[in-house]
Amino acid sequence: MKRRNFIQKIGVGSVVAGASLTAPHIAKAATQFKWKMVTAWPKNFPGLGTNANLLAKMITEMSGGRIKIKVYGAKELVPAFEVFDAVSKGVAEMGHGASYYWKGKSEATQFFSTVPFGLTAQEMNAWLYYGGGLELWRELYKPFGLIPAPTGNTGVQMAGWFNKEINNIDDLKGLKMRIPGLGGEVLRRAGGVSVNMPGGELFTSLQSGALDATEWVGPYNDLAFGFYKVAKYYYYPGWHEPGSAAEALINEKAFKQLPKDLQQIVLMACKAANMDMISEYTARNNQALDVLTNKHKVQVLALPQDVLKKLKVLSDEVVNELATKDAMSKKIFDSVVSFRSQVTRWGAISEQAYLQARSL
Amino acid sequence: MKRRNFIQKIGVGSVVAGASLTAPHIAKAATQFKWKMVTAWPKNFPGLGTNANLLAKMITEMSGGRIKIKVYGAKELVPAFEVFDAVSKGVAEMGHGASYYWKGKSEATQFFSTVPFGLTAQEMNAWLYYGGGLELWRELYKPFGLIPAPTGNTGVQMAGWFNKEINNIDDLKGLKMRIPGLGGEVLRRAGGVSVNMPGGELFTSLQSGALDATEWVGPYNDLAFGFYKVAKYYYYPGWHEPGSAAEALINEKAFKQLPKDLQQIVLMACKAANMDMISEYTARNNQALDVLTNKHKVQVLALPQDVLKKLKVLSDEVVNELATKDAMSKKIFDSVVSFRSQVTRWGAISEQAYLQARSL
Repeated sequence: MKRRNFIQKIGVGSVVAGASLTAPHIAKAATQFKWKMVTAWPKNFPGLGTNANLLAKMITEMSGGRIKIKVYGAKELVPAFEVFDAVSKGVAEMGHGASYYWKGKSEATQFFSTVPFGLTAQEMNAWLYYGGGLELWRELYKPFGLIPAPTGNTGVQMAGWFNKEINNIDDLKGLKMRIPGLGGEVLRRAGGVSVNMPGGELFTSLQSGALDATEWVGPYNDLAFGFYKVAKYYYYPGWHEPGSAAEALINEKAFKQLPKDLQQIVLMACKAANMDMISEYTARNNQALDVLTNKHKVQVLALPQDVLKKLKVLSDEVVNELATKDAMSKKIFDSVVSFRSQVTRWGAISEQAYLQARSL
Repeated sequence: MKRRNFIQKIGVGSVVAGASLTAPHIAKAATQFKWKMVTAWPKNFPGLGTNANLLAKMITEMSGGRIKIKVYGAKELVPAFEVFDAVSKGVAEMGHGASYYWKGKSEATQFFSTVPFGLTAQEMNAWLYYGGGLELWRELYKPFGLIPAPTGNTGVQMAGWFNKEINNIDDLKGLKMRIPGLGGEVLRRAGGVSVNMPGGELFTSLQSGALDATEWVGPYNDLAFGFYKVAKYYYYPGWHEPGSAAEALINEKAFKQLPKDLQQIVLMACKAANMDMISEYTARNNQALDVLTNKHKVQVLALPQDVLKKLKVLSDEVVNELATKDAMSKKIFDSVVSFRSQVTRWGAISEQAYLQARSL
């Protein structure tokens, strides 16, 4: 009798049925997948890096150890900005990053992280899961052999740390600010000088005056960097990143080698991790804001309405231009803009009206 | 050789290792759990009932069929308001409902669904997962042999359907409105008459004038009921239910019989379902609102600020009284109130400030 036939004969229903403690043990040993997850974050970076760890842990636990995932911080296996290529080529089976890092592949990737004056976290997830967004995202990544999935969101970010007061739009003229991507382009159109540099260099650049301002994330991440020591004003709201989504990347070939139950586990773990990250940021931004304002006496200031209005006009210009890049960008732009227009009407009489009522 | 020893000997590493297509098949047959899920919703009720179906489906798929769950609509196995007891007693292994239905067990249960002028969906999840809320919820349900888990949220609801304009707080005097729970108590203190009746009777009661007003959920669920045919005004925001959480109930004994991987699957499926429901409501409320206003010409009106201010004062009274019921209620009240005060400060400069900026 061949071994395989033998297993099939004893396996199903007869001998093993009921032996509920033994069988999962067999399954664990028999079908182990060893995966690598490369990330765009420093190892264990609060919120983003820890979400990658959590995602890997959930997959391992739910699969009873049948998938084991080793998580790599940026540069440990590949640099942050090579995560997309590494997963695409199968150097790693999974990745964890943010889709606006891959705009070199397609400008349209930016719609799946965040765009200036775009969707909040809750709206973004509504668009992705119930507004056709995720299907478009999959279509965009398909040629690269990648399956994308949302796996977290920072929520509304802060506008950033400034060493100069912003009272009107002209105060942005000549302002040297670290603000990458579309937000940076908006600043340029407002007369500012947008700079990109790694997080690790921001503190000294603010201190030396090489930078007048920088955006980062929000209180939870910003407190750790100590920006309050070298910048005077902490401005809100984060018009340029109203709800930045983190993405999981899955190598399609590796995914197809998984049995169906493990495929579901990987995808549903991303969805649960997505719920986890926004909850973590909402709770911890909060605690960090208390520390910044009470302990470190940080001045938290609102960008004036007039400045926000003008930034919005410029942002619309910049985002609208994305639609002209190629047919796929146009298709995604049309979907997100139509969704935003609807969700804004509903948001005005639900979240927005309620938050106002509660603060009366 | 005993059968069990034999399985262990062949099972691990030697014969089965590598036979990745065979082993999951063994596991499926060997460890099947057949569970029932009783729900507080009509079978397939949009948003709530469909979330229960989704939850069961995810668990079955992720477990490779090792857990099969039959979902029962309200009254199919037990009535809606007996779901808690049914799962507590092991009549069913799981339940799907909303914790404010169980205030007869403890007034404090209401904090885990929603309270007037309480937390939004995003804030609620932040409190539950990262603010100590879920630990308190588990502590509260422990004596009943139940493990609770959040499994969805409707988001901010509407204030309801009215056949009378509300221009000041005195317009609530004598108003006969279907509004159960704490919201109903607030209406009573404002001089109104709060009534509770099942959803199915609301349409005729509004039509006959037996009711002047009713709250339900939001556009997605309300459109289906056809309230627009028998009520003149659709008021916002839903001050009394700013983010109602749906709950999964798990019988603790049944849970403990599961191997660790299946336990994780059940809990993480709830977390993924939690992300799913708020996304669905956000997207579909939106579409339904368009139909209500454009096709059915519904008049959507804001409750005046002065009315909201007074309702907030009364709501605080009513919610504060919950803290006096018993030690556990006090403990939960203190946690949620302290969290709300912090999250409100952060929310003011993030979600709220951003939504305002976008609508400039």
